[in-house]
Amino acid sequence: MAEFQLIERYFSGLSGARQDVALGVGDDCALLQPPSGMQLAMTMDTLIAGRHFLPDTNPRRLGHKVLAVNLSDLAAMGARPAWALLSISLPEIDHAWLAEFSAGFAALAARHDLALVGGDTCQGEMSFSLQLTGFVEAGKELRRDGARPGDRIWVTGFLGDAALALKRLQAAEEPGALSGRLEQPRPRIAEGLALSGAGATSCIDISDGLASDLGHVCRQSGCAARVHLDRLPLSPAMARHVAKTGDYSLALAGGDDYELCFTLPADSTPPAGVDATCIGEMFPGEGVKLVDAGGREVPPPRGWEHFA
Amino acid sequence: MAEFQLIERYFSGLSGARQDVALGVGDDCALLQPPSGMQLAMTMDTLIAGRHFLPDTNPRRLGHKVLAVNLSDLAAMGARPAWALLSISLPEIDHAWLAEFSAGFAALAARHDLALVGGDTCQGEMSFSLQLTGFVEAGKELRRDGARPGDRIWVTGFLGDAALALKRLQAAEEPGALSGRLEQPRPRIAEGLALSGAGATSCIDISDGLASDLGHVCRQSGCAARVHLDRLPLSPAMARHVAKTGDYSLALAGGDDYELCFTLPADSTPPAGVDATCIGEMFPGEGVKLVDAGGREVPPPRGWEHFA
Repeated sequence: MAEFQLIERYFSGLSGARQDVALGVGDDCALLQPPSGMQLAMTMDTLIAGRHFLPDTNPRRLGHKVLAVNLSDLAAMGARPAWALLSISLPEIDHAWLAEFSAGFAALAARHDLALVGGDTCQGEMSFSLQLTGFVEAGKELRRDGARPGDRIWVTGFLGDAALALKRLQAAEEPGALSGRLEQPRPRIAEGLALSGAGATSCIDISDGLASDLGHVCRQSGCAARVHLDRLPLSPAMARHVAKTGDYSLALAGGDDYELCFTLPADSTPPAGVDATCIGEMFPGEGVKLVDAGGREVPPPRGWEHFA
Repeated sequence: MAEFQLIERYFSGLSGARQDVALGVGDDCALLQPPSGMQLAMTMDTLIAGRHFLPDTNPRRLGHKVLAVNLSDLAAMGARPAWALLSISLPEIDHAWLAEFSAGFAALAARHDLALVGGDTCQGEMSFSLQLTGFVEAGKELRRDGARPGDRIWVTGFLGDAALALKRLQAAEEPGALSGRLEQPRPRIAEGLALSGAGATSCIDISDGLASDLGHVCRQSGCAARVHLDRLPLSPAMARHVAKTGDYSLALAGGDDYELCFTLPADSTPPAGVDATCIGEMFPGEGVKLVDAGGREVPPPRGWEHFA
């Protein structure tokens, strides 16, 4: 089956009803009409089987996850999703698998009024490259480089659940309700939009783990972060894990959280609609410092890094 | 070495001097300022080692080719290149190789005032996913679906040279000057811009071979194409190959040409700056018909198709 027909068959109909898509899948390029007075926020990531997800992941959940991971980058910028291009590489064509994958992708795309406007398919190891474009008003974008000493550090949701689910799956244990946190992360688009223009001095999405991603904010903002371990937002399952093992490393460096980590001036609180926990504060210096409940500094676990 | 540093090291400085890049590589998203009154043309393709290029291709030439192949899609739309996002997957980090690859990419990007604004790197089989955005005035885009019976069919440059070079390389013969046609295709950006708004009724870039790509134009325009084999534009090397073998299949279906195939009304000729050859005409019906010098119809070779 030709590449063209493959794309058409599974991904037509995902152009949605957006008025700004002048031409979708099927030509050499898609044609889009950008809104006047808005900046475009663009991101692109590749997910590879065995590295970013388990090869036997349920295809509908995988379709969701591939999109969710990239939407999380738009969320971190305070951008509203608009258009997607998707490049799919598969070792062979499995029609039932593709139908499930595209259904999972489509359901999440529809929820965010995102149109799939292009891409390609080819034969190779299973991987997905997704490029997204969103809109954000100039001056309202959330960047990594604006945190200042004295700012408070906040995170949405809970940390470490996806890593705990993965750990259990790899140990052939039943992850239970945690599997949704690994395979169906909810991108914090609404929270990003609420934070945009609401005084946040920096924002990043937590994909490689809090320690690593907050480290990017420190480096790009030119200051240091202090994180209080006893203030980390933990689900009941993760709280039990920590109580049993004394080990915070999954919450700090497990990765795949897709929560937002942002900073606010000390006298501010998150805007309505953003359910977040204050976990520490920025101060002059560099790097991420961890302190335990007794105020003692503890060494940071290594964040998961590509080619590490 | 972390993903972030890898991107920074080899691809920083490729943001160029574009005024419309508000924020380049290094945050969750790039921020771009689209021009008012223009449409965006977006394309994305993945190239995989062993499938789209030989794994031992000179890395500088490969950096050029990955970009050229995608620029060709902008050319086919009549769009002016602007921004790129590049996702790189490599089995291991080879600094000398990456330096050469990025130099080849950079040289071609600079020639077209293209800024690399984002992307990622990961470990896996060697592959490159590239997403490009260009600008085209509404109404001046070149599409696949506007060819009409009576229109003449034109192609730029020569056909089949890249396929002939590949055939020779695979037979361990010296491809000579033809290797540049395989590894360093010149995207027809200037020709696409000249054709934009100059009355072309359709346009496509020839990536899978003339027969296959002109077939897309036929299908999407709802008419048929007649191609005269004796009018195909052939380089001296390809002309010798055809004279010796009587076989036009490399020129018709070899792929990797990255020339433009476009249609013009019968009373029009290509605009200044577009060096092209008239190879046939559209007529009512469907599909691509080939006729030899004696006017006899000959069967079309199969175009190279993914998963064929």
